[in-house]
Amino acid sequence: MPLFTGVVPPVVTPLNANFSVDFASFTRTIENLLDGGVHGLFVLGSTSEVVFHDEAGRRAIIEHAVKVNNGRVPIFAGVIDPTTDRVINHALTARSAGADAVVVTAPFYARTSQPEIGDHFRYIKDAVDIPIIAYDIPVCVHVKLERQTTVGLASEGAIAGIKDSSGDDGNLRYVLKDMANDPSFFGMTGSEILVDSVLAMGAHGVVPGLANVDPHGYVRLWNLMQAGQHAEARLEQERLLKLFEIVWISLGRTSAGSAGVGAFKTAMRSLGIIASNTMARPQRSLNDEEAAKVDIILRDVGLLR
Amino acid sequence: MPLFTGVVPPVVTPLNANFSVDFASFTRTIENLLDGGVHGLFVLGSTSEVVFHDEAGRRAIIEHAVKVNNGRVPIFAGVIDPTTDRVINHALTARSAGADAVVVTAPFYARTSQPEIGDHFRYIKDAVDIPIIAYDIPVCVHVKLERQTTVGLASEGAIAGIKDSSGDDGNLRYVLKDMANDPSFFGMTGSEILVDSVLAMGAHGVVPGLANVDPHGYVRLWNLMQAGQHAEARLEQERLLKLFEIVWISLGRTSAGSAGVGAFKTAMRSLGIIASNTMARPQRSLNDEEAAKVDIILRDVGLLR
Amino acid sequence: MPLFTGVVPPVVTPLNANFSVDFASFTRTIENLLDGGVHGLFVLGSTSEVVFHDEAGRRAIIEHAVKVNNGRVPIFAGVIDPTTDRVINHALTARSAGADAVVVTAPFYARTSQPEIGDHFRYIKDAVDIPIIAYDIPVCVHVKLERQTTVGLASEGAIAGIKDSSGDDGNLRYVLKDMANDPSFFGMTGSEILVDSVLAMGAHGVVPGLANVDPHGYVRLWNLMQAGQHAEARLEQERLLKLFEIVWISLGRTSAGSAGVGAFKTAMRSLGIIASNTMARPQRSLNDEEAAKVDIILRDVGLLR
Amino acid sequence: MPLFTGVVPPVVTPLNANFSVDFASFTRTIENLLDGGVHGLFVLGSTSEVVFHDEAGRRAIIEHAVKVNNGRVPIFAGVIDPTTDRVINHALTARSAGADAVVVTAPFYARTSQPEIGDHFRYIKDAVDIPIIAYDIPVCVHVKLERQTTVGLASEGAIAGIKDSSGDDGNLRYVLKDMANDPSFFGMTGSEILVDSVLAMGAHGVVPGLANVDPHGYVRLWNLMQAGQHAEARLEQERLLKLFEIVWISLGRTSAGSAGVGAFKTAMRSLGIIASNTMARPQRSLNDEEAAKVDIILRDVGLLR
Repeated sequence: MPLFTGVVPPVVTPLNANFSVDFASFTRTIENLLDGGVHGLFVLGSTSEVVFHDEAGRRAIIEHAVKVNNGRVPIFAGVIDPTTDRVINHALTARSAGADAVVVTAPFYARTSQPEIGDHFRYIKDAVDIPIIAYDIPVCVHVKLERQTTVGLASEGAIAGIKDSSGDDGNLRYVLKDMANDPSFFGMTGSEILVDSVLAMGAHGVVPGLANVDPHGYVRLWNLMQAGQHAEARLEQERLLKLFEIVWISLGRTSAGSAGVGAFKTAMRSLGIIASNTMARPQRSLNDEEAAKVDIILRDVGLLR
Repeated sequence: MPLFTGVVPPVVTPLNANFSVDFASFTRTIENLLDGGVHGLFVLGSTSEVVFHDEAGRRAIIEHAVKVNNGRVPIFAGVIDPTTDRVINHALTARSAGADAVVVTAPFYARTSQPEIGDHFRYIKDAVDIPIIAYDIPVCVHVKLERQTTVGLASEGAIAGIKDSSGDDGNLRYVLKDMANDPSFFGMTGSEILVDSVLAMGAHGVVPGLANVDPHGYVRLWNLMQAGQHAEARLEQERLLKLFEIVWISLGRTSAGSAGVGAFKTAMRSLGIIASNTMARPQRSLNDEEAAKVDIILRDVGLLR
Repeated sequence: MPLFTGVVPPVVTPLNANFSVDFASFTRTIENLLDGGVHGLFVLGSTSEVVFHDEAGRRAIIEHAVKVNNGRVPIFAGVIDPTTDRVINHALTARSAGADAVVVTAPFYARTSQPEIGDHFRYIKDAVDIPIIAYDIPVCVHVKLERQTTVGLASEGAIAGIKDSSGDDGNLRYVLKDMANDPSFFGMTGSEILVDSVLAMGAHGVVPGLANVDPHGYVRLWNLMQAGQHAEARLEQERLLKLFEIVWISLGRTSAGSAGVGAFKTAMRSLGIIASNTMARPQRSLNDEEAAKVDIILRDVGLLR
Repeated sequence: MPLFTGVVPPVVTPLNANFSVDFASFTRTIENLLDGGVHGLFVLGSTSEVVFHDEAGRRAIIEHAVKVNNGRVPIFAGVIDPTTDRVINHALTARSAGADAVVVTAPFYARTSQPEIGDHFRYIKDAVDIPIIAYDIPVCVHVKLERQTTVGLASEGAIAGIKDSSGDDGNLRYVLKDMANDPSFFGMTGSEILVDSVLAMGAHGVVPGLANVDPHGYVRLWNLMQAGQHAEARLEQERLLKLFEIVWISLGRTSAGSAGVGAFKTAMRSLGIIASNTMARPQRSLNDEEAAKVDIILRDVGLLR
């Protein structure tokens, strides 16, 4: 069996207006996800604004999540920083703070080759006794985890699975095919809008940032696909497509990064889950006019009355 | 007058075989540069493998450089990390460790807009009382410091100057033109191979990684351009072009990053400046066959007998 | 009902060793596709090496296809060239030669904006009385047909449908959603390896270059998806994934373009459909060693004994 | 001696409001350039909107230029189209119409490797008896003519020189160094704003689109550099930098392509050289408000009163 499966959302990190973590809102964020039936929690992902938090801040976030979760579901912790030894330090912290697995990208800022990227994962595996999930996110690290790199690492046991946010579902499909004889390996997609497709091709899980806004929707979608009800799953996915339109509302005034996570936070504020939609600086938060547009969409998909 | 001018090399960080900093070699690296007549030292730049070092390691590197330099030339410290508050922490460290200026890139991993990038510099300026040099290096951070952003920040006094490693000399020229009425503003190029050109168009300094191998060459080039001896400067630049060919020797087997800084380290080892050509992991170091090719070029340009 | 649906392969253009079109092989290529049960033929697509053929050559290719087809299925003709008026000329030729629709990309070489790209399609629509299929292929034209551009043109009636070779299935899904109220609009994918996925999300057809090698496979896949037999469709798609591995055999020695279409031609030669695997110059054809590797894969998937 | 040297502007192709070529304006455009003292004419370059013109239109443009020029300076003709055999046809036309050299890019739309690109030039050389100038313009063809490709072709005699519009002056410098022993080889830059720099490093000519607006300026700049008067040359270049700001006026409303050549045409209309600023469709022309901004700049640099 794959080590992890199901809906494992990257958990939004709510902030106070002064940019400190709002732990009360963070508790509600986690409870809302668990209420929705998710199968795991991924703290300190890109959606969690991980790279805005330093070592101490990251430890506090993991520890809080572990405490709130209290063993209900597995917890993945992103250990995302530019280079190998710094990632190892984050992974040791995550392990000691109670995470069940760590999520590791290719190095960034530094420009590395595929063999060097492979070694990056091997060094981390050797240094820390915890399952490693490879995180393929070229939009942030500007290099692709190529099929041969991923499959090589998986075959060696250096990685337990992959979270694919590359948008290259064809490549993911080949990775799944290449690893089909290893029942413990798992592939998850970071997509919010192609979940039914990627599950239909054999993926084992989904890591949708939008589940912070509508966990029930993604869990329904997962359950329908597990039951082979493709037509109903498609309808649920199409409802979530409408909801996902919130991520483009502030685009142009803000960056793509601020527009996406900023819209999740704004929707969560409207739904009473978090207190503020503040983004980590220097990112810009959605303004009132943009928040009103988010609410229109929330009403349209039945989340807000 | 511009705050800083001249040849300010990014200082290579020598490593032991176990990846710890080799401070004895680091001392020789700095002395070799100062012997060569350089006008400043830029520690913790990309050439220094800055993102491979954590907070404590960075502090030790700056403090060592400050001690060895002992006030002879100004010291810039790179404070390079993905996001604003983490950069502020590095900048506070750099200031307390004795740096004269800090070098700041746009945020990375996080995707930010030009206005957000501008705010990034403003927040750092507000938090730390030290001159800020903007570092335009799209090959690492994957976003350009656009002319309007740079000129806006310079006009407000948020940045004291720019180090341009973008390869877009036309844009640098416009920035210099736009800031021509501010005699304190300075522009420096990160190029090793267009130094005469960029100085001829009015730049105030040069930050060549290759100066770790041949500081005298770059200082000669600087002096010739200051004296208006363009033809002689061109000859010196062309000699340095031959030397710069070392950066492609291991390309293909290693990444571009490892090939460039790795070749500098390999040449410095051949010249007796440092003890090992070890690159920070997971980067690959040049092997013996590649080192032999480096030596051929060192002999060809008269640095090795 | 959508104007066109089903499996509409881009038809390979077989060449003699002297680079002229081998019309006897072209006849067999078309008959092989029709035998396989395809629902349309797309001549002069990227897979057909369209940009290697001039006006007269293109007319001959369309006329030959029209004659061989003899009304059995609709024929799309690619009218691919850099700019509007030249495309209009190709479209007039295609119409007079008997094509049922033309396939039009964004301008290329010239750098145009989305509004200018929209006008490009409008000018062609005004000039030629034939259905226009928008062809989204950023890997060749280096610009994306953005959702708003495509949906705007479709809503105006300037385009009848879209062929999406962008790899951005999320965007295609939004286009299909936006046009859901227009039953005549159709979306097709150019993917060979995500056909089941894209059909499951509501696409109306598929344009796989690999169908030149195995038309029966793609028609089976289409029929299974029409029948709602997703699990069986997935198995067929996975068989075709194995076959698609031929496209990487010569990569590195040749360009990606030569490697892909060159592998199709090499497989078709092994299957007795065409006489030569010659690629239009300056592209390189697969050599004997590479052809032997193609044959191994053909045997593996049951196409060759 | 290099086959060609000096200021060789890409000649704007004036259009009537109905998109046909305005030959009377074209005559004035050429006479204005020759009055300015240019050393050659490059018709059918990117600035000439070459890819908007078909074979017959291109022939008419070359023939008209040859007639007006009447042997006063050499004429280069761009023979720019996606693939080898189509370029050969254009080159035969150019030769028979009286061009002295042809300018050839890498293939485009089709994705080719560096060895295939090399063969592209070799096939053209074998087919047409006329000097070939390689045109490195990745912004349009989306592939770089790598140093090894260019130097290999030059060493074989397949190309007579290079026009570099890549913006990579470091690479051009290496090409010039590699070919320094061949006195017939020449390198020219397509830059408008780094002309003094590129000439100082040894380039043999300059191909500035902006010379259509101010040929005297670029000829003065050339003469000053030939005389070794670098400081005066820099002042002239800086004046031309101010003028070049016209190319960004309509950016955002139009594409970069329309904004640049469109601004040249608008300025030429203000200066009485051409009758209309019409751009080939689907490109957008500058509007009245934008034209007024062009005029402000023309006055600022002393071209308009």
